[in-house]
Amino acid sequence: MKIIESISEMKNVRWGMDGPVGFVPTMGYLHEGHISLVQRAKKENASAVVSIYVNPTQFGPKEDLKKYPRDIPRDLAMLEKAGTDVVFIPPDGDMYPTGYNTWVDLEKITERLEGAARPGHFRGVATVCNKLFNIVEPAKAYFGQKDAQQVLVIQKMVRELNMNLDIVVCPTVREPDGLAMSSRNTYLKPDERKAATVLYKSLQLAQKLYDSGERDAGKIRRQMTEFIQKESLAHIEYISIANVNTLDEQEKIAPPSLVSMVVRIGAPRLLDNIILK
Amino acid sequence: MKIIESISEMKNVRWGMDGPVGFVPTMGYLHEGHISLVQRAKKENASAVVSIYVNPTQFGPKEDLKKYPRDIPRDLAMLEKAGTDVVFIPPDGDMYPTGYNTWVDLEKITERLEGAARPGHFRGVATVCNKLFNIVEPAKAYFGQKDAQQVLVIQKMVRELNMNLDIVVCPTVREPDGLAMSSRNTYLKPDERKAATVLYKSLQLAQKLYDSGERDAGKIRRQMTEFIQKESLAHIEYISIANVNTLDEQEKIAPPSLVSMVVRIGAPRLLDNIILK
Repeated sequence: MKIIESISEMKNVRWGMDGPVGFVPTMGYLHEGHISLVQRAKKENASAVVSIYVNPTQFGPKEDLKKYPRDIPRDLAMLEKAGTDVVFIPPDGDMYPTGYNTWVDLEKITERLEGAARPGHFRGVATVCNKLFNIVEPAKAYFGQKDAQQVLVIQKMVRELNMNLDIVVCPTVREPDGLAMSSRNTYLKPDERKAATVLYKSLQLAQKLYDSGERDAGKIRRQMTEFIQKESLAHIEYISIANVNTLDEQEKIAPPSLVSMVVRIGAPRLLDNIILK
Repeated sequence: MKIIESISEMKNVRWGMDGPVGFVPTMGYLHEGHISLVQRAKKENASAVVSIYVNPTQFGPKEDLKKYPRDIPRDLAMLEKAGTDVVFIPPDGDMYPTGYNTWVDLEKITERLEGAARPGHFRGVATVCNKLFNIVEPAKAYFGQKDAQQVLVIQKMVRELNMNLDIVVCPTVREPDGLAMSSRNTYLKPDERKAATVLYKSLQLAQKLYDSGERDAGKIRRQMTEFIQKESLAHIEYISIANVNTLDEQEKIAPPSLVSMVVRIGAPRLLDNIILK
């Protein structure tokens, strides 16, 4: 497994790599969710490249950039075991040199949900992914369904800028009690960790109501809200039932619909979602 | 010479083309300036691709999109003669399908000169070039020095988004009397065409003053202004003497400096520039 720490070296190494290349961009502090992406990338391509880069431009000024968890030696051990060929760990000065000011900006779809809660977040995400795709030149890049809006933004960028790769969306990997895997879960104290199961349980409630024929999004949202509010450590930031492509909120459910949510459990903002089909 | 009228066909044809590919993006209504770019692209690469696309997103709502001159049969004849391998003429619906909203935006450098005069212009230019580069995948793309700020914007985008091509800047091609070639010159009435020579003459005046040791940008600008104002059909929009990379205006000239200008001769806005070294 090669470890590469500059853009120019990554481009050089890429030049000599067996294609097609499968690519998994990450912010490190890996969990089984990431590893499932790497395994799939390795299975479907001649080579697998993983980037570890805590991208500063997708964090707001009051967000947890400095506190974002990091553990490169542990990440490297996990990636080696998963069959990764190349790990790309670019420094900030290489990714955003002094005077940097080129941005990839998507309108509308980035103004809702996470985009509304975190202004500029998706501009940072789209920009860094655009750069990484140009550096690594993968045939396919792998993302988790857990970050549903991120997936939509990246897919739209790739399609609209005519980029030459496919975006592969992989199912959310969950803990045995249903909590979606996330690097931010490590922030949770033991009682918060327990409380965090309300997210997926409320999504299962939505699925159950939908399966029994309920199509009134407001009613489903209210029942989810009431369920979550029974957990005193949980604070709902939003619950959305929206068109899965446009993210337009739906009053009457017209599948496929994305049921997505952010619930704060203590300080951490936890995301989860399901798609009603 | 192949003529291709859809993105998917262009990507298919590109797949089978001999590389490296040299690329010349144009808005059509070609003149010798464009042809000099095509000839250089052909000389330096295995294949030459030229796009003809009057990009709507770089025109403001009050600008001359509909009136922009077009003559595809004439363009094709010129391109065939110049040795072009592929001409790419995408339709608007293919480039900007309904719901399109991904933009490449550069800060600062696009806020000056042409960017200040034409808000959103360089967002459109950067976006369409980004798309075209992804579609055509050239090793080199060729641009004329006449559009100096455009060259800076494209170079910065390619560098900062880590795109995999080189931007080659070619000298401005001029009429025998010094007027820089431009598709917009065809708008000029006979007396305006004659008056239009003041642009290059004033740049030559700047060069002469610089060569004789003058380093006060204000003095040079004043002499250029006085010279142009003697021509009653000419209306100066701006004369700039700026750092060639940042476009920061200079009081004292510190070469290389870009002397650039827009002068309206009747309705058309004419651009020209030189670099003081």
